[in-house]
Amino acid sequence: MAEELRIGIAGLGTVGASVVQILRRRAASLEKSCGRRLTVAAVSARDRNRDRGLDLDGVAWFDDPVELAASADIDMFVEVIGGEEGPARTAVEKAIGRGLAVVTANKALLAKHGMSLGKLAEETGAPLGYEAAVAGGIPVIKTLREALAGNEIKRVYGILNGTCNYILSQMEQEGLAFETCLAEAQRLGYAEADPTFDIGGFDVAHKLTIIAALAFGVEVNAESVHVEGIEAISLEDLKAADELGYRIKLLGVAQRTAKGVEQRVHPTMVPKDSSIAQVMGVTNAVTIDADAVGELTLIGPGAGGEATASAVLGDIADLAKGNRNNAFGLPAFEFTATVAPAIQEHEGGYYVRLSLQDRPGAAAAIAARLAENNISLESIVQKGPRDERGKIGQGKPVPVVLLTYATSEARIRQSLQTAVGDGYITGKPQVIRIERE
Amino acid sequence: MAEELRIGIAGLGTVGASVVQILRRRAASLEKSCGRRLTVAAVSARDRNRDRGLDLDGVAWFDDPVELAASADIDMFVEVIGGEEGPARTAVEKAIGRGLAVVTANKALLAKHGMSLGKLAEETGAPLGYEAAVAGGIPVIKTLREALAGNEIKRVYGILNGTCNYILSQMEQEGLAFETCLAEAQRLGYAEADPTFDIGGFDVAHKLTIIAALAFGVEVNAESVHVEGIEAISLEDLKAADELGYRIKLLGVAQRTAKGVEQRVHPTMVPKDSSIAQVMGVTNAVTIDADAVGELTLIGPGAGGEATASAVLGDIADLAKGNRNNAFGLPAFEFTATVAPAIQEHEGGYYVRLSLQDRPGAAAAIAARLAENNISLESIVQKGPRDERGKIGQGKPVPVVLLTYATSEARIRQSLQTAVGDGYITGKPQVIRIERE
Repeated sequence: MAEELRIGIAGLGTVGASVVQILRRRAASLEKSCGRRLTVAAVSARDRNRDRGLDLDGVAWFDDPVELAASADIDMFVEVIGGEEGPARTAVEKAIGRGLAVVTANKALLAKHGMSLGKLAEETGAPLGYEAAVAGGIPVIKTLREALAGNEIKRVYGILNGTCNYILSQMEQEGLAFETCLAEAQRLGYAEADPTFDIGGFDVAHKLTIIAALAFGVEVNAESVHVEGIEAISLEDLKAADELGYRIKLLGVAQRTAKGVEQRVHPTMVPKDSSIAQVMGVTNAVTIDADAVGELTLIGPGAGGEATASAVLGDIADLAKGNRNNAFGLPAFEFTATVAPAIQEHEGGYYVRLSLQDRPGAAAAIAARLAENNISLESIVQKGPRDERGKIGQGKPVPVVLLTYATSEARIRQSLQTAVGDGYITGKPQVIRIERE
Repeated sequence: MAEELRIGIAGLGTVGASVVQILRRRAASLEKSCGRRLTVAAVSARDRNRDRGLDLDGVAWFDDPVELAASADIDMFVEVIGGEEGPARTAVEKAIGRGLAVVTANKALLAKHGMSLGKLAEETGAPLGYEAAVAGGIPVIKTLREALAGNEIKRVYGILNGTCNYILSQMEQEGLAFETCLAEAQRLGYAEADPTFDIGGFDVAHKLTIIAALAFGVEVNAESVHVEGIEAISLEDLKAADELGYRIKLLGVAQRTAKGVEQRVHPTMVPKDSSIAQVMGVTNAVTIDADAVGELTLIGPGAGGEATASAVLGDIADLAKGNRNNAFGLPAFEFTATVAPAIQEHEGGYYVRLSLQDRPGAAAAIAARLAENNISLESIVQKGPRDERGKIGQGKPVPVVLLTYATSEARIRQSLQTAVGDGYITGKPQVIRIERE
């Protein structure tokens, strides 16, 4: 049996405390499967006196996580502090720099400094695990990096933010407005007091760019992700989607096209019978399209202390066994700077919801503008004129919902801009991209 | 960079040919992620002259897979011949015996000889990969063995046979009889000429006992699996399930209970809104309940040359990197003989469909028998009297469907036996176990 593995854990929040607890309650099993004893040798957190329900007798305490990362008395460094800069970054760099095995749950750090950390890890031979950084307890990193090594990945898309999926699920199932559902999510602790990072799609962008690097060998770069949040999704959209056989989900999509690797986060229409459409509430899901395996969908908890700790433990066990992978599958030194095609170059189907003025020729004018741009319609639903509250009556705006066959974003935007100029459209057209299996 | 890895592949059927093709088309990427070149050094198959669309120039040919396994010119042995005995077994034992890395897709071999192969592998230090043996392209072995190392598994259940799921899906969606759907499955190549192994549930039992070993540390033993097939499922059952908010799937379920580790394969009622209920056609799915991660569901192709080869390649890449795991997670030498509780000890909800005679007191008599055995009913649906073809009329049998709350198999069977003795029931009661998320 190999020597004991002395683990240093920086950060004792919900995830860190769960990691300590799991290492203890699963000690016997982990020792057998890893072939060595795993011990919590040292920890670091801000407040030594806070009661975390953990017995830390005999565990070395460090006020400074960077000092912990530099300690000669640990063989592995686990970072669950969070944050893209500051002590988390310095400590991880310190540990990788000295060739220590490192496990982190820090998506912000990876999204910002993933490539430089990956390169440093290859230079020093430090293995770097970050399963917990993307989609919580779902083993998407392991699946992309290891299980699908024989595949060329075509597309990865997923529900990567539980807060947004909870809000959209509640709106759809309970018929409640966005603001009501957001407030409820905040009350339940699913959303922060300032929810912008979640509902604006930025959290998904962080996870998506890590996935894109693994799947396509492009540099991790959150800047190359096109991001739209769910703020503008209305009950009307959810109802129209339902009638047309779709659901609306906030998806992160990374896809290889002839023009490069698209990385985009936006509300998306998905067919109601797809695996991903079934995923409701705070649950996350990732679908991978690849040449050999076809389609694979992984569904599970995207957050939570124990679920995230489960992913951290998977990495700890792998590295304890001495198992090694390049952090991003392919050698990080070979990664090319991302050339993300502009969103205008995206090709796909579109959902468009318009309010037309209730006067002759309005619908015909819109149809003509789409036809000019070679856009074919899969369906068109026009209802009687009604006001914003759904009150019916002549002279009020006429709601129209269009589904297009595959076209380009540029054409859709061009058509709608011209149509708005024609003066028949009231308000701003709602445009939602469609993603099919 | 490490030395080239010389791979010997025994079996050049659909899977074997795909493995050769993927190793070639992904050669550059695999070399980078594994840090060494992977080459097809030697192959073995029955007929050297058959055209497989493969260029085998420069690849050593062996008529005998056992000789290939013994060759000094290979560093890894891949077995995709199939069969629990014969050359597949002898060759795998030979390769493991000499400490060679072995990858196999052979579920029958693992289900029968998994423990002895696992022990031999630990003695000789040969790593043994068999991701492709269970659920085709779905990385369920890797997830259980590696990603969930920090979890105590409570239950694993899944759709593990595409033929059965195709038949049940077609019956439900098209309203066709079992025999019609089976014939169509045979025409499409989803079912064998003798379909017993698939539709009788035996194929699922093989996969389930491998999963149970990984999840619970019990010995692989197909004999300890309670097996029922889908032959007795009728359109009436599928319709009744639908009305009650369920679907019927052939599940393999491995579950730790107070009495041991249940391993059972049978048609099962699953709630229509569960992830597993959405899985239609030949697709497979596995749901894992574990203490830290909660619930994880993996959905993907359970068969097919390329999808199975994808799993083989995942193992090849792991072993090429030098990554090592005990074949069954925990050391095989420590596994205890399975004590599988008898199916009579199973506890759960039940669906019961009966035909009652159309005479006073029939329903009351059944209700009394269930009450005697402390069985509570979740719902009871009784329709007007009708014959086997659904023709309504007084004096004809009365179809009754019951859903019970959790009770034991013994109580259900006892109640029904007594009720049959009462003389009110015509025909054999249909009993289907319910599995909830």
